[in-house]
Amino acid sequence: MKYILLIDSPDAKGLVYEVTKTLYKYNLNVETNREFVDKENSKFFMRTEFSGEVEVEIDNLKDELKKNLPQNAHIKLTKHRKKDIILMVTKESHCLGDILIRDFGNELDANIKAVVSNYDVLKPLVEKFNIPYFCVPTEGLSRSEHEDRVMDVINSFEFDFIVLAKYMRILSPNFVESYEQKIINIHHSFLPAFIGANPYKQAHQRGVKIIGATSHFVNNNLDEGPIIAQDIKRIDHSFNWRDMQKAGRNVEKIVLSNALKLALEDRIFVYANKTVIL
Amino acid sequence: MKYILLIDSPDAKGLVYEVTKTLYKYNLNVETNREFVDKENSKFFMRTEFSGEVEVEIDNLKDELKKNLPQNAHIKLTKHRKKDIILMVTKESHCLGDILIRDFGNELDANIKAVVSNYDVLKPLVEKFNIPYFCVPTEGLSRSEHEDRVMDVINSFEFDFIVLAKYMRILSPNFVESYEQKIINIHHSFLPAFIGANPYKQAHQRGVKIIGATSHFVNNNLDEGPIIAQDIKRIDHSFNWRDMQKAGRNVEKIVLSNALKLALEDRIFVYANKTVIL
Amino acid sequence: MKYILLIDSPDAKGLVYEVTKTLYKYNLNVETNREFVDKENSKFFMRTEFSGEVEVEIDNLKDELKKNLPQNAHIKLTKHRKKDIILMVTKESHCLGDILIRDFGNELDANIKAVVSNYDVLKPLVEKFNIPYFCVPTEGLSRSEHEDRVMDVINSFEFDFIVLAKYMRILSPNFVESYEQKIINIHHSFLPAFIGANPYKQAHQRGVKIIGATSHFVNNNLDEGPIIAQDIKRIDHSFNWRDMQKAGRNVEKIVLSNALKLALEDRIFVYANKTVIL
Amino acid sequence: MKYILLIDSPDAKGLVYEVTKTLYKYNLNVETNREFVDKENSKFFMRTEFSGEVEVEIDNLKDELKKNLPQNAHIKLTKHRKKDIILMVTKESHCLGDILIRDFGNELDANIKAVVSNYDVLKPLVEKFNIPYFCVPTEGLSRSEHEDRVMDVINSFEFDFIVLAKYMRILSPNFVESYEQKIINIHHSFLPAFIGANPYKQAHQRGVKIIGATSHFVNNNLDEGPIIAQDIKRIDHSFNWRDMQKAGRNVEKIVLSNALKLALEDRIFVYANKTVIL
Repeated sequence: MKYILLIDSPDAKGLVYEVTKTLYKYNLNVETNREFVDKENSKFFMRTEFSGEVEVEIDNLKDELKKNLPQNAHIKLTKHRKKDIILMVTKESHCLGDILIRDFGNELDANIKAVVSNYDVLKPLVEKFNIPYFCVPTEGLSRSEHEDRVMDVINSFEFDFIVLAKYMRILSPNFVESYEQKIINIHHSFLPAFIGANPYKQAHQRGVKIIGATSHFVNNNLDEGPIIAQDIKRIDHSFNWRDMQKAGRNVEKIVLSNALKLALEDRIFVYANKTVIL
Repeated sequence: MKYILLIDSPDAKGLVYEVTKTLYKYNLNVETNREFVDKENSKFFMRTEFSGEVEVEIDNLKDELKKNLPQNAHIKLTKHRKKDIILMVTKESHCLGDILIRDFGNELDANIKAVVSNYDVLKPLVEKFNIPYFCVPTEGLSRSEHEDRVMDVINSFEFDFIVLAKYMRILSPNFVESYEQKIINIHHSFLPAFIGANPYKQAHQRGVKIIGATSHFVNNNLDEGPIIAQDIKRIDHSFNWRDMQKAGRNVEKIVLSNALKLALEDRIFVYANKTVIL
Repeated sequence: MKYILLIDSPDAKGLVYEVTKTLYKYNLNVETNREFVDKENSKFFMRTEFSGEVEVEIDNLKDELKKNLPQNAHIKLTKHRKKDIILMVTKESHCLGDILIRDFGNELDANIKAVVSNYDVLKPLVEKFNIPYFCVPTEGLSRSEHEDRVMDVINSFEFDFIVLAKYMRILSPNFVESYEQKIINIHHSFLPAFIGANPYKQAHQRGVKIIGATSHFVNNNLDEGPIIAQDIKRIDHSFNWRDMQKAGRNVEKIVLSNALKLALEDRIFVYANKTVIL
Repeated sequence: MKYILLIDSPDAKGLVYEVTKTLYKYNLNVETNREFVDKENSKFFMRTEFSGEVEVEIDNLKDELKKNLPQNAHIKLTKHRKKDIILMVTKESHCLGDILIRDFGNELDANIKAVVSNYDVLKPLVEKFNIPYFCVPTEGLSRSEHEDRVMDVINSFEFDFIVLAKYMRILSPNFVESYEQKIINIHHSFLPAFIGANPYKQAHQRGVKIIGATSHFVNNNLDEGPIIAQDIKRIDHSFNWRDMQKAGRNVEKIVLSNALKLALEDRIFVYANKTVIL
């Protein structure tokens, strides 16, 4: 049985000692252990994977850890399990398809509970893989009415993360706040360059020699949430914006997959609108 | 109507002039034009995309070009058309899946005529996309008997390229010679490092800090055919060979797709066991 | 004798034909030939290196080319020669040092005529290499007074390019306009992200996973000139802004050197605030 | 006062606990802490930077650590100090120059005690920076005679590492064994591709689309020592081997600098002909 322990805490002397002492006392096997101290802000982060020969009484262990750590330390202690995700898409198939193929090949450590879209374009693709597809069209609905319907669908499932696999509508504060640090987006630029609509057109206009993609948690400032992963691709003057868009798709899908993998493995701490990845 | 003209020839003075003169005389619009001269070997390569307002009489134009070029110049002149491909796979889904998703999203400028495999593992995936799947098991067959059956399947189709999308059997000289410069393979290392079986195990053993993938035309020297495309991914000591394998899949599928795109666009010249890509 | 021909022109049918015809008529050997057509804007760019057995009468050849090209085509035709450059620096040695070492190793195809700085910090380094160093301090001077003195120094030399190798003062419109498309800057971010002061602090604040550097021609909008070259380096949460700054120096110096190389080889066309590099 | 603790040991339960307990008992501040467990080989690696308010009695602390760790654990505990290095070069200036410029700019956390070469080509460069240069020509000497003279020079200094900054002679087993895990080399290929002489010629011959460089500790198998750092550069068919060589120099110097930085910061463990970098 594998467990994952995440601690973020004000920094103090002896924190690793306190944590490992407790795990040792419980006779647990530490598999991997990573720590990071942000000195500037006196913050301590630790991620530990451990296993035990017998079932661990999680609440007891957590209480014991709490006693020995600073008062406002956050402790997250869970049995490792396959996470549940909901995908949101619009019309483009590359990010969605990449996730579906990973799922088919047992490379995605998650259960795809549903795909939600504002169009029915991708329904035939999703249904090939026997995954429920919910089309919530926007016609005749205000933004908040549409989001209410989407939330009705989403909330009918248990899930850990919502993955915006090229969902091309801006989400309202109400929606975003309902799923804090649970919504993972892929933006088709190396943020903070080219925030907003049509980043490839912006990139072409600016004459950059590199394009990129950024996966981030969504917050209420457009394209300004905590960045999880980024990658780039070199281009040259011969790329018009459609060429950039085509070339960028490979970057987008890989960056989104990499970010999702980190989230599914409980490796991401969010702090000061940044991520610490252990 | 778009045409593609490929010329490789001994180098000589005025070759671009001779070609463009002829195209000008035929009142054709040159869309793009790329040349390369290998000085060391006195070889000239040229790729021109052009269009005409009326249908071009290809044979006439070719004859005219021939008259003005060195005697042993090779001229390939074709109307642009969507190419036909056959995929060969074994059990891994990532390269195959990537191509199927591109096809679904109209990002693959090719018709997938069939998928041929030595196993039936990937049949369910391929059939979702309504593409014929031929399983040719190896049991009880000699290598040449098996290849004969595979060739029977393949030869029942018209096609331009065979794509080995992780086909994990070595092909015999007889097979390879039947499809010269038509078989595109993906090898899971940055060749010439780690030729042969289990390159990720070899890479782990060697302790490299970078893994990669190489797409190449297949010839009769294992993993020594002309290289079309390569890419890499940085790793560190924490990757065991299975982690490398997982991380490498993203590189493999992108490199294969990039190489296939170059082939489908008629951009690759093969020369001295190398490629010139225009 | 090697010559370089640069043409930018409105696009028209047969331009490559017209140019190569003329070169053929003059019995010249085309060494390399690259063209690019920006279809959207109907612009044609061509760079040709050629050599002749006898000295070419440049003015005659240029006139002949002019006759056969669209009226408002720009033709630049020069004998290949080693360019002259002036370096401007402030206090950081990495970009300057990289250029000096290239010069020492005969890897820099340019003559460094002088180094101009607002500080004397780098004087000892420059003088090791027997290159004139001019310190123009800013104390007690208005911006325009200071720039006038700098221009007095600069204008006492013949030069092709001014290289801002980490010159940390903003140049006034008057200065910039005096040296149009002659000033090459290195900015320590992947523009257009993090324009202005302290890009590494901005990058740290934003929590990016990639930092970069951009070399561009200077125009009158800060950090918005035509981009010549860019590159990036992956970072993670463990980098504070000083770590980013240190890591970024390697990117900065390589990007600046790459951009300078392109300029020295006459490969850069500037158009619509972008570069076409042939 | 900063200290660095390096432990490699057979893996066992509670190792991090034992180490941090001891540091806690001594009232030391752990600054950073990184561990790695190689499960396959049951090996544990740990690197800890810590500081104390008063001078630490290193021998006492080491003894205490020893008591609590497995019997055959290796413990290296040192006060942090600037390391001493000796550079060996032949004729190329790019790697040497890069190190000299870093030294000038206070970016190199090391003292360059001497530069040793088999030629005097680089003497003028080194002497600009007031560093002793020893030319040990090979003429009229057997390999072992030459190496004896080189060793005489080297051994007249205290040093931590010998950096082969493009030293183009193969070192004998006798030489290599005298400085185990102290000799850092830069090889101009992404090893294990293109071992031996003229890797760029080999790379050109093979038609690769990527070149690279590898920094490694030297052992008695040519180019087969434990790899510390690698990087690559994309190329295409237009690069002849001299172009590759020129382009590769940027990769070589950066990779060597990165590897040297890791060595100077005591971050490298060597194990099973591989490196673990913490």
